[in-house]
Amino acid sequence: MPEKVNASIITIGDELLIGQVVDTNSSWMAMELNKYGIWLKRRVAVGDSRQEIIRALEEESRQADIILLTGGLGPTSDDITKRVLNEYFGGRMVTDQAALDNVKAIFARFNRPLLESNVKQAEVPNVCTVVYNTRGTAPGMWFEKDNKIYVSMPGVPHEMKGMMLDFVLPKLVSYFVLPAIISRTLLTAGIGESFLADHIKEFEQALPSQLKLAYLPNYGMVRLRLTVISTDTATAERDVEEQFAILKERVKEYLVTDRDEALPAVVGRLLTARGETVSTAESCTGGYIAHLLTAHAGASDFFKGGVVSYANEIKQEVLHVSDTTIRDHGAVSEETVRAMVQGCLNLMNTSYSIAVSGIMGPGGGSLDKPVGTVWIAVGNDEGIIAEKLHLRFDRTRNIEFTAIFALNLLRKLIVDNR
Amino acid sequence: MPEKVNASIITIGDELLIGQVVDTNSSWMAMELNKYGIWLKRRVAVGDSRQEIIRALEEESRQADIILLTGGLGPTSDDITKRVLNEYFGGRMVTDQAALDNVKAIFARFNRPLLESNVKQAEVPNVCTVVYNTRGTAPGMWFEKDNKIYVSMPGVPHEMKGMMLDFVLPKLVSYFVLPAIISRTLLTAGIGESFLADHIKEFEQALPSQLKLAYLPNYGMVRLRLTVISTDTATAERDVEEQFAILKERVKEYLVTDRDEALPAVVGRLLTARGETVSTAESCTGGYIAHLLTAHAGASDFFKGGVVSYANEIKQEVLHVSDTTIRDHGAVSEETVRAMVQGCLNLMNTSYSIAVSGIMGPGGGSLDKPVGTVWIAVGNDEGIIAEKLHLRFDRTRNIEFTAIFALNLLRKLIVDNR
Repeated sequence: MPEKVNASIITIGDELLIGQVVDTNSSWMAMELNKYGIWLKRRVAVGDSRQEIIRALEEESRQADIILLTGGLGPTSDDITKRVLNEYFGGRMVTDQAALDNVKAIFARFNRPLLESNVKQAEVPNVCTVVYNTRGTAPGMWFEKDNKIYVSMPGVPHEMKGMMLDFVLPKLVSYFVLPAIISRTLLTAGIGESFLADHIKEFEQALPSQLKLAYLPNYGMVRLRLTVISTDTATAERDVEEQFAILKERVKEYLVTDRDEALPAVVGRLLTARGETVSTAESCTGGYIAHLLTAHAGASDFFKGGVVSYANEIKQEVLHVSDTTIRDHGAVSEETVRAMVQGCLNLMNTSYSIAVSGIMGPGGGSLDKPVGTVWIAVGNDEGIIAEKLHLRFDRTRNIEFTAIFALNLLRKLIVDNR
Repeated sequence: MPEKVNASIITIGDELLIGQVVDTNSSWMAMELNKYGIWLKRRVAVGDSRQEIIRALEEESRQADIILLTGGLGPTSDDITKRVLNEYFGGRMVTDQAALDNVKAIFARFNRPLLESNVKQAEVPNVCTVVYNTRGTAPGMWFEKDNKIYVSMPGVPHEMKGMMLDFVLPKLVSYFVLPAIISRTLLTAGIGESFLADHIKEFEQALPSQLKLAYLPNYGMVRLRLTVISTDTATAERDVEEQFAILKERVKEYLVTDRDEALPAVVGRLLTARGETVSTAESCTGGYIAHLLTAHAGASDFFKGGVVSYANEIKQEVLHVSDTTIRDHGAVSEETVRAMVQGCLNLMNTSYSIAVSGIMGPGGGSLDKPVGTVWIAVGNDEGIIAEKLHLRFDRTRNIEFTAIFALNLLRKLIVDNR
């Protein structure tokens, strides 16, 4: 009989508390745990402090069955996690031969001398199962106490991921009898969160109580997620599919995708299916749209290339926007982005092009064209459409919002062209 | 007399526990709190659950003076933070006229009808001070209980940031008598964490006990941070400066910058100071280097533009890499990236160009050129240098590592040219 298994993540490191590092490990770990029916109940970040680490271990073990720790396993003196765990679980430090061989092999590969601090990395508490690190020098540690599992891993994302995939997740799955977490996700555009909630009010009220609906708004789009946690996989899947079909029908005029995928992936999939290609002509987004399109494997099937025309000179000389267009209307204008699309189509010989030009801030605005003014155009040989945005975020979010808006405009053009 | 003031952050939302969202709010808040001498002691993420929110409030208030909460203030039914806070602090819900006027103004601006759920957003517990939201509809709430401060803010980053900067931070600063947190940061390249630790062992051993040294490795570079928390600002500053000068001297051959700035900012600053410019020719990084260079304001002073030459056709037609170069050596080769630099210098007329071509994975590798093979070149009219990488990360990190490595190669070329 499957049990509800709860996990908690403890991330350790002063750098997390002074804001020098954004914690991307936790969301990745959460997603992986979810796939196997393990519910992440809490995440806690504490500093490199013995007292704080012990407090977190005590608190989290009170309600979680699995406690995953990351960070504080490096070779330097501020890394104290291993010592504290050894104390907490009442062990003594011993050198693990395989971990030492791994450290030695890595140093040999890079042709570097072995330091005492590196040798020390192969020491582990004698009360743990060693989790070998195929991507770095610090071994992980698996402890069991009072029917609870504790796993300590490095904070370096790719090292942690290797341990999770190769060892920790398979071992957790065989240790517990896990329920199924089934969920379906869709993405909408063109309707705000509260209007969407109003639009699907009846659906939500009629939703069977075991199903949970979540709204995840971002960049002016709203993702909806239907979830059920159940010990009966077949029934759970049927329930979710049934309600998901109703939900999809209800939001069909706003539907971007009924899969759990990001907008650039949707655009890539649409283009690839049609054997079509896209290119980009970016001013204010500075290459970010091209980056989003190429972040996932398979981009070469639909993305040929782009121009980042940050200076007006590049708009003119590479994209052949005429100097009269820029002089008469300005670099941030409908005329300029339309000319950029045309120039990019000619230069890159793609089915579609995207062009953006705007003022991302904090400086560069004028009375006429304040910070946040952005022109976006997308088009193909049959025509070009353009839209203007007035953004009010900070520079980073203005860039992100513009990129997502432009990709959605392209998506609409592709879908309308079908 | 200043006190040591501790803060704790509670982020609320199921999306944080299933990994659908990366928490960037906490690191931003941590950085801001630090500036004012407030020490972030812990960060906790919990789901949209009454019981979990109350547990977190009880636990965090036991050791923190300030508890900042984000999330769960939206208009939909899964947003329960406000109700739970009202219960926790024993209030009753009342409509706040100014918050309602704000909601109405926003809907009028977008020419949208007001829904009941939006009107409800203007309801707040009568036991809080309302924190007005100049960037969205959900008001924040400031509570005081047993000499502790609790502030609830939306999870939308730019709305939270607005409230923090306009209201919460100034009010916290006037509420507490705060100590100074003084720190200096430097960035090194070309030496691993354990070798660096060995290299500065004597410095670390001789470091006065009130100073703390932290190692922050990332992308093959290591950042070192010296920190002191003190009630005596003048002495603290003198102590940090004195030790920082010694540290800087000790690591001078590896020093990238002695400021707390990212590598793209270092490159931008060096170029701007020299009145020089750069352009980019990117294949496998797909625009990410251009994005890093343009992410901060002022990029137009040194960045003119770039070409994302994802397809070989674009390398040939836009950057004028000859087809014999690509045929004889392949798109991922020293010859190709050198030709890309030359083509980009000619096209963009900049002082320097950066070019990269590689195989980021997971597919596309061969026996001869496995996944992770990357060629990087940087150059100017006087010459071009090229280096080869063998990366072993996942696609995302391969892209990030390559971009940072390329920018550091450019930095070295600029510095050597001085």
